[in-house]
Amino acid sequence: MKNRIAQRMAEINPFHVMELLQRAKELEKQGRDIIHMEIGEPDFKTPDPVLRAGIACLAQGDVGYTEAQGLLELRIKIAQYYQECYQQSVAVEQIFITPGASGALLLALAATLNPQDHLLMADPGYPCNRNFVQLFDATPKLIPVDAETRYQLTAELVQQYWCEHTKGVLITTPSNPTGTVIPDAELGRIVVQVAKEDGILVVDETYQGLLYGHPPTTALRYSEDVFILNSFSKYFGMTGWRIGWLIVPKAFTSSVLKLSQNLFIATSTPAQYAALAAFEDDNMRILENRRLEFSKRQDYLIHELLRLGFKIPLKPEGAFYLYANCADFTDDSFKFAYELLESEGVAVTPGKDFGTFQAEQYLRFAYTTSIERIAEAIGRLEHFINQKKEGV
Amino acid sequence: MKNRIAQRMAEINPFHVMELLQRAKELEKQGRDIIHMEIGEPDFKTPDPVLRAGIACLAQGDVGYTEAQGLLELRIKIAQYYQECYQQSVAVEQIFITPGASGALLLALAATLNPQDHLLMADPGYPCNRNFVQLFDATPKLIPVDAETRYQLTAELVQQYWCEHTKGVLITTPSNPTGTVIPDAELGRIVVQVAKEDGILVVDETYQGLLYGHPPTTALRYSEDVFILNSFSKYFGMTGWRIGWLIVPKAFTSSVLKLSQNLFIATSTPAQYAALAAFEDDNMRILENRRLEFSKRQDYLIHELLRLGFKIPLKPEGAFYLYANCADFTDDSFKFAYELLESEGVAVTPGKDFGTFQAEQYLRFAYTTSIERIAEAIGRLEHFINQKKEGV
Repeated sequence: MKNRIAQRMAEINPFHVMELLQRAKELEKQGRDIIHMEIGEPDFKTPDPVLRAGIACLAQGDVGYTEAQGLLELRIKIAQYYQECYQQSVAVEQIFITPGASGALLLALAATLNPQDHLLMADPGYPCNRNFVQLFDATPKLIPVDAETRYQLTAELVQQYWCEHTKGVLITTPSNPTGTVIPDAELGRIVVQVAKEDGILVVDETYQGLLYGHPPTTALRYSEDVFILNSFSKYFGMTGWRIGWLIVPKAFTSSVLKLSQNLFIATSTPAQYAALAAFEDDNMRILENRRLEFSKRQDYLIHELLRLGFKIPLKPEGAFYLYANCADFTDDSFKFAYELLESEGVAVTPGKDFGTFQAEQYLRFAYTTSIERIAEAIGRLEHFINQKKEGV
Repeated sequence: MKNRIAQRMAEINPFHVMELLQRAKELEKQGRDIIHMEIGEPDFKTPDPVLRAGIACLAQGDVGYTEAQGLLELRIKIAQYYQECYQQSVAVEQIFITPGASGALLLALAATLNPQDHLLMADPGYPCNRNFVQLFDATPKLIPVDAETRYQLTAELVQQYWCEHTKGVLITTPSNPTGTVIPDAELGRIVVQVAKEDGILVVDETYQGLLYGHPPTTALRYSEDVFILNSFSKYFGMTGWRIGWLIVPKAFTSSVLKLSQNLFIATSTPAQYAALAAFEDDNMRILENRRLEFSKRQDYLIHELLRLGFKIPLKPEGAFYLYANCADFTDDSFKFAYELLESEGVAVTPGKDFGTFQAEQYLRFAYTTSIERIAEAIGRLEHFINQKKEGV
């Protein structure tokens, strides 16, 4: 039977954190209080204006397919958002509404990657990205990065790792798991470097709305010839709706249109109508308050983790993650995460999910829970570390 | 720039009917009355019990990710449906909730196809299916079929076309575009034939609910070792929600789980909660009435098309399509469809969208509009044909 499974499946890893999550849920069923800092999902619910727009869509009862590329009204709103937020003009023909940023990445890579192509990306990085590359029997070339380059690729690294098989580069800014942003000037240099090689550049800007002390930006500022992934999930609080968008260079729009027709038929209609309300002033005010709350949580969590002896060499500018070095406590962050869950009921994600480079030294803390709960988690973590020290 | 586009894009065709649809919409904007018989979407809206369940989901406000495989409650309901409708037991571990049958096919093929593999399928057939195969740089081997085999593959054809590159077979029963069903005994023989070759069998049962005078069936009756695609779109009237399901042979469940986590994160949460109401008695009664209405439309449309001189050599048992031979009027059904739209405002799909075998002799009529509108379309079609005859 074995040979009936596609070869690529050997290269595609499950999320390790899913097993940890399952264990966490088992413990909860047993009555344990678990603090969830492992999940990349805001604790804030979908804002009311968006919920109301979704309900209004269902109440009028017409939930048929939209056009494959997505509702024109929504694409117009997204174009306006780029104009207002980034002073960038984007043609609605280049905007595709997709089932999450996942759907956007599927389209971008299906339109560009041949088997055996290489795509450069950072290690640590969001694990789905490399698995999407494997889907097309192409190779994700993981480039080890650390605090020296803000856990991000640089133009120099792109140049250094480029080989005859390299098709392009995928960057995520702000990054998951590190929350760090590629500095503007460096982003510009990466764009130039990829263009010099006639490669493709995919920029995951899913967390652009969630920036703290750093103005929002987009790679479109530096070139129209980039694929931009974005999502209504994280900043806009619409995870379960499954809706995002892709901005496509003009040379690829007809390819991506064919793909979107064939692969999706269309994106969820209620999600599209709900998302129309996402850019309204009342909703944006709610999102701004949430961003400020995330920023407070980040400050608090950084302060406390440093106090406990974790190393966070630089303050991340965005997203809702801290990638903390725990090498002073363990040489196996995976084991550490499981022990922490079992003995203290605190769930965090081991570095192993994000790559191989120094993964055993890192834990990702998602501050997707209240400061009160984070404070409780810190107390438990302190207890755990002290017990460990005494045990040694 | 050209070489930056993936090679597969040369093999993936757009839907020709999309251009026709666009032209139809232009004509509507000009004030013309267009009868739409080109679209594979029921005119019946999502039934009220499902809409209410969707609204209830949004009203309580918690629209987070579900688990990647889908809500356990929904998978249990689907398992019960197989038990009640088909007397088949299916383990919930084998059921995956997906973004439409499209998402189900993506998972099934990603788990099985290597580049260069062949997958056998019928010509004519649903065009997305072959494009999904191209996505993985595999080859859809289109087997010409006609009325002699009910426009379906047979075990004999599978045996005849099997070669060293063949990985498996995809069948769709009832078929889109022909509405024909693979007879039970033949389905059993196909299952045996594919097993003999140690291949994979993917069975698209999207239209199984919509059968007229033929008891519902599933390939699971003949083997547990098949991939079953199904959808809430057509029979359940939930097109725009984007939700379907995949039943996976036990040997592939861990692969498909990894893929679903990576490719989708999860299926739309409101769609899943809404679908929980789909199997309730009150909803099933609504669907049964709709099925009876489709059956009446089919009878009427067959009668009228035959009267006009179209050839429909066998009565289809399901779906909401008629694949009618128009060779007596034209040797170019694509041109015929455009002319019919322009002069009479009746939109139908040319055979070209479904393959190459005798495609120029066929048109697909979707009876997804009321009998009154179908009658109006028939009147216009008759006028068009008479004008053509006079013109000759």
